[in-house]
Amino acid sequence: MRPLILVTNDDGIYAPGIKFLAQVAAQFGDIAVIAPDKPQSGMGHAITINSTLRIQKTDYHNASLEFACSGTPVDCVKMAVNHLLQKKPDLVLSGINHGSNSSINVIYSGTMSAAVEGSLEGAPSIGFSLCDYSIEADFSQAEKFIQHIISNALKNKMPSGVCLNVNIPKLRAEDIKGIKVVRQSKANWVEKFDVRKDPYGRDYFWLTGEFVNFEPEAADTDEWALNNGYISVVPTQTDMTAHKYLNELKTFE
Amino acid sequence: MRPLILVTNDDGIYAPGIKFLAQVAAQFGDIAVIAPDKPQSGMGHAITINSTLRIQKTDYHNASLEFACSGTPVDCVKMAVNHLLQKKPDLVLSGINHGSNSSINVIYSGTMSAAVEGSLEGAPSIGFSLCDYSIEADFSQAEKFIQHIISNALKNKMPSGVCLNVNIPKLRAEDIKGIKVVRQSKANWVEKFDVRKDPYGRDYFWLTGEFVNFEPEAADTDEWALNNGYISVVPTQTDMTAHKYLNELKTFE
Repeated sequence: MRPLILVTNDDGIYAPGIKFLAQVAAQFGDIAVIAPDKPQSGMGHAITINSTLRIQKTDYHNASLEFACSGTPVDCVKMAVNHLLQKKPDLVLSGINHGSNSSINVIYSGTMSAAVEGSLEGAPSIGFSLCDYSIEADFSQAEKFIQHIISNALKNKMPSGVCLNVNIPKLRAEDIKGIKVVRQSKANWVEKFDVRKDPYGRDYFWLTGEFVNFEPEAADTDEWALNNGYISVVPTQTDMTAHKYLNELKTFE
Repeated sequence: MRPLILVTNDDGIYAPGIKFLAQVAAQFGDIAVIAPDKPQSGMGHAITINSTLRIQKTDYHNASLEFACSGTPVDCVKMAVNHLLQKKPDLVLSGINHGSNSSINVIYSGTMSAAVEGSLEGAPSIGFSLCDYSIEADFSQAEKFIQHIISNALKNKMPSGVCLNVNIPKLRAEDIKGIKVVRQSKANWVEKFDVRKDPYGRDYFWLTGEFVNFEPEAADTDEWALNNGYISVVPTQTDMTAHKYLNELKTFE
């Protein structure tokens, strides 16, 4: 029996990135696409609890099951696994995101939060992102690597509760050096609010920021891998406990 | 000089929980309250990048600086630290949430995401939650413990990049046994979508779910602490790398 692969994203069900990912996934199994009906970038692990959800059948991906959902990426995974699908997916794929989700971006990213939610639902899950924000980004350059990663995830059981954060550098196929399994870089965003006046003279704000890598030389990190021509794969989990400080912080007891 | 304490939450700037927390915080320093202008529960680490932000001066908390912000809890912290405050806060407090944020709830919680963002901004940060969803929840029962935790955080330097997830059981003051520094329980939500018909005959959905604790006997966890009369304190960090699987997953290279 062909595996059941759930495909979702955060750029919305009509984004080129998910179109490409669904096509690659269809080489490996039956695909179900349940994704947001509009862009949901930066939604992190948000879920919809103060309002209601809608779903709408679509046929953009020629999938066996396909719905646009009014909620967040995490809502989409919950809706798929707990309501729309007849059985648990063998693999959850999220992306391909238009833009990087390396390093600290993992906690802001709707793409990665969907993958994290997949792993919480007990399914092997992978989030893919291409370091190119353009709507015309060329996802095909990394196709053989994406195939390799999907194929490997289907063949080798992934550790329970762990998903993969895969980021792809913006390079031509022949310039991608390979895949590196690495840790999340220590980095951060330094924000700047762009203040503007609306036509009525009132201030409004755009959130903007600059990415700062605190350890650019650390070769075991995703940022280093990406900056040196590699696809980065970070095993990602949901225990946020800072285990090494448990003892030190007993002072709070 | 009195410390500068930023107070925020996810239930909105007019919620009883933040009112109480701001009052306690004011015993220890000058408070600035920058919080969402409406309920933002379940927003996780969402940020506003596809639309604009507004802020509005308020005077509900008698704070030296006080604004309601149209964005998420994380937006509020970014707006406070990078735009509204003259200096970095000495402490960021988020809450008190109306409802538990123990265990896996940490990744869905706007309250905790605000605290996590505070730690990313380099400020010692604490998220407080009371295990009582009622709008009439009695926050005062835990006042002396909250005072102890705030006082300790101001006195003893917290590890950089780590914030605290504090959950308070719904008990009378005399029945709270103390504080336990513990790890995040392995637990999950099993969702159920409540399907209804709108007046036009179309389906809509409410996300509901049941919390499942996979390790109810583990005495070093937050769920155990809460179920046994203790306030739980989980040191929480933002490295989501599953370090112990880095080697095993080299098969992906």
